[in-house]
Amino acid sequence: MVKPVIIKVDEGLDIELEEDFIKANERIALLNRKIFDKYNLKVFDFMGSIGSGKTSIIERLVEALKGKYKIGVIAGDTSTSIDAERISKYGVPSIQINTGRECHLDALMVRRATKKLLKKGVNIIFIENVGNLICPADFPLGAHKRVVVVSVTEGEYMIRKKQDIFRAADLAIINKKDMAPYMGVNIENLVKDAIEANSKIKVIVTSAKTGEGINELISALEL
Amino acid sequence: MVKPVIIKVDEGLDIELEEDFIKANERIALLNRKIFDKYNLKVFDFMGSIGSGKTSIIERLVEALKGKYKIGVIAGDTSTSIDAERISKYGVPSIQINTGRECHLDALMVRRATKKLLKKGVNIIFIENVGNLICPADFPLGAHKRVVVVSVTEGEYMIRKKQDIFRAADLAIINKKDMAPYMGVNIENLVKDAIEANSKIKVIVTSAKTGEGINELISALEL
Repeated sequence: MVKPVIIKVDEGLDIELEEDFIKANERIALLNRKIFDKYNLKVFDFMGSIGSGKTSIIERLVEALKGKYKIGVIAGDTSTSIDAERISKYGVPSIQINTGRECHLDALMVRRATKKLLKKGVNIIFIENVGNLICPADFPLGAHKRVVVVSVTEGEYMIRKKQDIFRAADLAIINKKDMAPYMGVNIENLVKDAIEANSKIKVIVTSAKTGEGINELISALEL
Repeated sequence: MVKPVIIKVDEGLDIELEEDFIKANERIALLNRKIFDKYNLKVFDFMGSIGSGKTSIIERLVEALKGKYKIGVIAGDTSTSIDAERISKYGVPSIQINTGRECHLDALMVRRATKKLLKKGVNIIFIENVGNLICPADFPLGAHKRVVVVSVTEGEYMIRKKQDIFRAADLAIINKKDMAPYMGVNIENLVKDAIEANSKIKVIVTSAKTGEGINELISALEL
């Protein structure tokens, strides 16, 4: 074994500008939370890679909860409206935000979309963030809970590689449980990795396909 | 069905700054290519989500080619050195670049790492970009071929959602073929989606687990 060389990139001059964006976003996120609470809105931010199952889990939640709540959905993607179209089939108002080159939603985008959904009388908003495990971590949106979704088919290292997003989250969903036997993935190890990244995180194992774990998720969201 | 509202984000004032970064990167990428050619180095940039199988495919290529070439590997990740450590077990020099908040490698990072690998006498470099399907698209590194890796376990929409990265690539790998029957995914549709995004792209279906498609990949890389 040849020991690998490890280079840490010096972020240099533009770190200051980036810090400014992050701080400004945090301020708007706090204001968002005040608006949500003023209107008795419960807001949940779902983060995770493309294909991890964020939309499928939101679909399951909408199916289970649409008799009890007025639900709205905000879906972020760089360029398509596939997710909002999937959700809109359930008869709930959905807003697609196309972020272009930005790889995360920010608090201002969510603030604008929330105003539109409030006009529809919603009292719950599920936000589906842009699909990746990196960028959304630094940009809270003001949601009451941040949820990170990973699937057992993403391999055994994804949690250890992206601990930041697990630290930023209140809840971790390990999805596609039904695929674990075929992947040879040990779910217990994934649960341990999540707790090692963030000892306060609550971990729920689901299969959006079979519906397993969805009731437990609803309890964890206090809905 | 309620028609979703679609909002396109106005990128606003900072687009100019971003364009500057992108243009500067492109210039350095062109210079990188000149250096690669001067030293008879063949360089390949592998992009894709975390868990798509980039490292496993590079491991297979290293196994198959290390008798024929002097191989070096550059692995990008925000914070860990898991990938370079996996590769270094094969006895080839590997460099891990930790990008911090940046969700892609850039041409300057690769230029610095290449200098270190040239001192080890390598004549092929496999670059593993930071794991996501968004950010690397805009940042060419000077590689002779850009390869995007997706896996059948990422769901049926990932190519349609991230056409930009398929447009930026010369070669698409659809990996984890062995999982397709369990996922109920139609690989033919994924191949069609890739070609619809980029009519010039070459698509190869692989299973890094079983080794299927690796010889075809080696031919496509002209190695």
